[in-house]
Amino acid sequence: MSIRIGIYGYGNLGKGVELAIRQNPDLTAVGVFTRRAPETVKTVTGLPVFSADDVEKMQDKIDVMILCGGSATDLPKQTPYLAQYFNVVDSFDTHAKIPQHCACVQEVAEKSKKTALISAGWDPGMFSLARLYSGAVLSEGADYTFWGKGVSQGHSDAIRRIEGVVDARQFTIPVPSALEKVRKGEMPTFTTREKHERECFVVVKEGADKARIENEIKTMPNYFADYNTTVHFISQEELNEKYGGLPHGGVVVRSGVTGINKQNKHVIEYSLKLDSNPEFTASVLVACARAVFRMNGQGMYGCKTMLDVPPTYLSAKSREELIAELL
Amino acid sequence: MSIRIGIYGYGNLGKGVELAIRQNPDLTAVGVFTRRAPETVKTVTGLPVFSADDVEKMQDKIDVMILCGGSATDLPKQTPYLAQYFNVVDSFDTHAKIPQHCACVQEVAEKSKKTALISAGWDPGMFSLARLYSGAVLSEGADYTFWGKGVSQGHSDAIRRIEGVVDARQFTIPVPSALEKVRKGEMPTFTTREKHERECFVVVKEGADKARIENEIKTMPNYFADYNTTVHFISQEELNEKYGGLPHGGVVVRSGVTGINKQNKHVIEYSLKLDSNPEFTASVLVACARAVFRMNGQGMYGCKTMLDVPPTYLSAKSREELIAELL
Repeated sequence: MSIRIGIYGYGNLGKGVELAIRQNPDLTAVGVFTRRAPETVKTVTGLPVFSADDVEKMQDKIDVMILCGGSATDLPKQTPYLAQYFNVVDSFDTHAKIPQHCACVQEVAEKSKKTALISAGWDPGMFSLARLYSGAVLSEGADYTFWGKGVSQGHSDAIRRIEGVVDARQFTIPVPSALEKVRKGEMPTFTTREKHERECFVVVKEGADKARIENEIKTMPNYFADYNTTVHFISQEELNEKYGGLPHGGVVVRSGVTGINKQNKHVIEYSLKLDSNPEFTASVLVACARAVFRMNGQGMYGCKTMLDVPPTYLSAKSREELIAELL
Repeated sequence: MSIRIGIYGYGNLGKGVELAIRQNPDLTAVGVFTRRAPETVKTVTGLPVFSADDVEKMQDKIDVMILCGGSATDLPKQTPYLAQYFNVVDSFDTHAKIPQHCACVQEVAEKSKKTALISAGWDPGMFSLARLYSGAVLSEGADYTFWGKGVSQGHSDAIRRIEGVVDARQFTIPVPSALEKVRKGEMPTFTTREKHERECFVVVKEGADKARIENEIKTMPNYFADYNTTVHFISQEELNEKYGGLPHGGVVVRSGVTGINKQNKHVIEYSLKLDSNPEFTASVLVACARAVFRMNGQGMYGCKTMLDVPPTYLSAKSREELIAELL
C-alpha cells in the first residue's frame, strides 16, 4: 500500500517534492494545495491542484501533508493548523525559533494524535544529525559548520533592493584556508570574516553608478559588512545562463580527542554538494514523510524532529534488508 | 544518576572503552572482566579487574556491558550468553554474518527483556548510518565506500605469517583518482584494483630473501593479488617509531540525481580521519551504551543495531538542549 502525500504550497520546494515523490515507488502524490486560484496553477507533472480552503475535506485521502511554505510567516501558522487534521512535515528553518515552533506544534499534534515532524531539510536537518552523532561520539571536541559554495536567496534579495540593481545572485563560499585548518584537526576560533566570503553577480540599470552600488553592497550591515565581498557586474543574459540554478551545500566538521593524554585526534566530516538546493531539501522532506507515517502507526504522536527518528524509518527498504545490506 | 558500565574483554578496544568512559561524566566504569587470571591484568586507569567466571554475580552492579572481544570466535558466543543477564553492546563486524548474529541475540534478549545493540563502531556503525541516510534521501544513486588511509590488522597479520618476516604493518589507501571521480558526482564502476592500493612496511630476519618475500606478499590471493601493492623493507626501530599507531578512516559517498530529467546531481560525503581506530571505535560503543540504557528503560527489548537507535538517545544532552543547540 502506497503512502499518500499532499503538498501544501507550490513554489520551488513544492515542485521539488512533486518530483521527489516520483522517485519513490512506495509514495503517491495526491495533489497540491494552494492559496492561489487552483485553475491558475499548473503543476510540473500534471498533479491535481486543490484550494487550500478545501484541505480539511481531504483528511481521509492523505496520509502525510508536506508543507512547502516559508518560515517567516507561513509555517508558524500552517503547521499547527494542519497538524489538527494531518500528519505533517515542515522545513521550518528559523533556528532561534525552533523550540517555540516545536512547543506550539506539540500542543496540537498531541491532542489530534498526529505526528508532526518539523525543521526537516539539510540545515536544520541532515547537518543537525551530523552534529548530534559526531558530538555524541567525540564528547571532547569542537564543531564547525561551513555553508557553500552556494546561492543565498536572502543575500541575493538584499542586493536586489539597492537602487539601480535589476537582478543579483549571491554566492556564500567557505574560506579554503579555514576549512583546511579544521580538516587537519586543529581547533581554531574564527571571526565571521575568516570563515566565509561572499561573491556577488549583479545586473544594473543602464547608467547606474556602479561604484556606489558596490560600496552599498560591501558595507551593508549584517549581510556583507563583516565579510570579504567581491562584486561582479554582469549582463542579465550572463546571470541567467551561468548563475541561473540554485546550487548549495556545506560541510559539518567535528574534531575531537581521545586517549590517556588526549593525544589522539579524530576528524569527522559530513559534506553536501547540491546542484539544486530546493530539490535536495524536498528529497529529505519526502523521506521524512515516510518516517512520519510509520511513527504515527507506532503511536509516536506529537512534535518530532529528525533527531527523534529511528533511522530505519526513513528508508523504503525493510529493516532486514538494511541490516543485511548496509551494516 | 550515572550509568554503570562493565567492560568484557581487555585488549586495545577494552582499553579504549575504559578511556572513553572517563570523557563522559554521565557514565561510570565498574570494572573489567577477563578470562585471564585477574591479578595478571593491570588496567590503564586502575579499574578493578574481575574474572569472567564471576560475571553473573554482577547483574545488580552493571547497567550495560560493553563486549570487547573479537568477531571470529568471541562475540558469537559471548553476546548471546551475556544478553541473558545484561544490556549489552558489541562491535561484531563480520558483515556477512550480521543477520545470523542478530537473530541469535534477538532470541535471548527478547526473553530476558534486555536490550542488545550489535555491530556498533564505524564500519559497521557510523558508515552504515551514513549509507542509510544518504540512500533514503537520494533514492536514485550509487554508493561508494573507501577505507583508509589506515592500518589493516588482518593484512598486517597475513604478512607476518610469511617465512622470514619479523614484523609488518599494512596500510590500505584509497586510490586518489577514484575518490576524485566519485566526489565529482560521476557514478563509475570500479574494479578492486581501481579503488584501493596497499602499502606494506616489513621487517625481515637478517639474510632473508627479500625478493621472495615481496613476491609472496604481492601474489597472496584475497589479501594482495587483486591490488597494486608496494612493499618497503625497514628496520624494527623505524616500524615502531613511524608506524606504531593504529590510524584508520575512510569515506562513504553517495551520489544521486533529482529533477524532471534527473539533470541535478547531488553528492553526500561522510568521512573519518582517525588517529586511533580502537579508541574511536570505543567512543562509539560508549555512546551506544548510553542509548541502550535508555532504550531498555523505554521497553525497547531485543537485538538492535545503530540503525534502530533514535539519534537523541546517543547524546548526553537532553532532547530539549539538542533541539535548541543543533537543529
